[in-house]
Amino acid sequence: MILVVKSGGPEAVLEWRRGFGDLVPGLEVRDWNDPDVTPEMVDYALVWDPEPGRLAAMPRLRAIFGSGAGVDHIVADPTLPPGVPIVRCVPEEATQRMGEFVVWSVLSLAKEARRMALAQVASEWAAVDPPFAAADRTVGIMGLGAMGQRSAEMLRALGIPVRGWSRSRKSIPGVECFAGAEERDAFLAGCDVLVCLLPATAETQGLIAAPLLAKLPRGAGLVQVGRGAQQVLPDIIAALDSGQLSGAVLDVFTPEPLPAGSPAWAHPSIIVTPHVASLPSRAERARYVARAIAALERGETLPHLYDPARGY
Amino acid sequence: MILVVKSGGPEAVLEWRRGFGDLVPGLEVRDWNDPDVTPEMVDYALVWDPEPGRLAAMPRLRAIFGSGAGVDHIVADPTLPPGVPIVRCVPEEATQRMGEFVVWSVLSLAKEARRMALAQVASEWAAVDPPFAAADRTVGIMGLGAMGQRSAEMLRALGIPVRGWSRSRKSIPGVECFAGAEERDAFLAGCDVLVCLLPATAETQGLIAAPLLAKLPRGAGLVQVGRGAQQVLPDIIAALDSGQLSGAVLDVFTPEPLPAGSPAWAHPSIIVTPHVASLPSRAERARYVARAIAALERGETLPHLYDPARGY
Repeated sequence: MILVVKSGGPEAVLEWRRGFGDLVPGLEVRDWNDPDVTPEMVDYALVWDPEPGRLAAMPRLRAIFGSGAGVDHIVADPTLPPGVPIVRCVPEEATQRMGEFVVWSVLSLAKEARRMALAQVASEWAAVDPPFAAADRTVGIMGLGAMGQRSAEMLRALGIPVRGWSRSRKSIPGVECFAGAEERDAFLAGCDVLVCLLPATAETQGLIAAPLLAKLPRGAGLVQVGRGAQQVLPDIIAALDSGQLSGAVLDVFTPEPLPAGSPAWAHPSIIVTPHVASLPSRAERARYVARAIAALERGETLPHLYDPARGY
Repeated sequence: MILVVKSGGPEAVLEWRRGFGDLVPGLEVRDWNDPDVTPEMVDYALVWDPEPGRLAAMPRLRAIFGSGAGVDHIVADPTLPPGVPIVRCVPEEATQRMGEFVVWSVLSLAKEARRMALAQVASEWAAVDPPFAAADRTVGIMGLGAMGQRSAEMLRALGIPVRGWSRSRKSIPGVECFAGAEERDAFLAGCDVLVCLLPATAETQGLIAAPLLAKLPRGAGLVQVGRGAQQVLPDIIAALDSGQLSGAVLDVFTPEPLPAGSPAWAHPSIIVTPHVASLPSRAERARYVARAIAALERGETLPHLYDPARGY
């Protein structure tokens, strides 16, 4: 049984192989471009941003694993073999890390971490009497999957008021939940900080733009941990410059890496992070994929399957 | 009834006055250096770092309020009038803010926020595969007063293992509590991140230094939100440079403001913040002091009283 890996480059294959260890007896972990592996030999693929057409050429392929929670980089391939399940990688550790990152981002906005970081670079003691605690402002989370729910629970545990929005209605203790297009504006109107944890779909493309930002209360904060294609960066910068937004933490961009010339880097109200919100370790992801392969071999179905109708 | 205020400078007096409003009927809020207020007229003082001798000259003084949680800046005055209660300012909001700041600091170390901030200044996309989640490392809190306890609870709520140390034994659900000098080394040996929330006393002076840092596991993190006099900055820097410490968030210094020439500013593993961990708003502190004055006028005793025997 052969699993080919395209995630982290050829130098990461050894680490992936160590992560799988003996978790799936008989499984060989090989590089995506291993010259000794022909497409006919491949049973499973674990990939990030695979070249279009490559997966379609693997006739025995039983499942495709994304190496992250979003699989937009896989389903962008129009030649994808039909009927082969695509599994999103959402190990427990990824959910924990995302929750931690969202909490860090929300607190970074409340504590004015970007201003303090710039003051440190200038060796400047910029003491302030901050106008509010994080718990004085409501955080709104768009996207209430496993990661959004965990983020909501963590923020609530710190005493921070939380509301949430999702396509279909969810129920989370202590969180006011909104659903569907018709409730979105009411949701946005009460978000002192907006956290975007939406999947990348046709519907969410370009969503974080001027029309949506205008629906937030003046001076709101923004945390973007979804996908870069969801945002219109010039609109975010314009909203920051006009005071409609007071600060932003952006972890995702189009393209990535963010080019050196982007105005986001030097903006005094933007914290740029290099798509690190929820990178679980390779060992943890290998365990997740190994458990999934074992379950598939037993004929079971899996959670976190990509649904073409839903788009994620 | 007259309250004199020395905190935030003369320009803050108006804000303090607005904060007190009508909360204590008959209370006049005046500047510490108001030429129309003689020492004989003063009933209450709300102060930060008062000039030695000034409080002793107020014969009617009924209570001294610190404008922060620590009152070391007051009790340093050897002429302090005996028998006048000294009240530490620990409003609920201060406890909440400290908890938020400690969580932000611990997450900033786990997410390598200092490295990311420096990369942003250089317009560099420095993606990494981080080796652990915050929840993989135990945080140890020294000092389990109201602020330490709230910080412990918040960290626990994020799934982060927490241990604590204090002079006298405390009991906090889910937190392994150590007490006294004889248990301190055992406590330190299990702290992947050490948070110092101790009061400034003769015992804690110079405590955060090479001998203590050597008792932490190699590569530990440090969060210092106590008082600057507790730390030996060159020892902290040496521990960072040797790898004994992996990173530090320092909010307090001696002296403050931290001089522009301090090596802490440019150190790649130190986050410098300008003593902002727990600055509640003046309105909230005024409410706290007003409630305390009303209680004292009713003859009640107060929590958060300075105890000379204990030193805080």
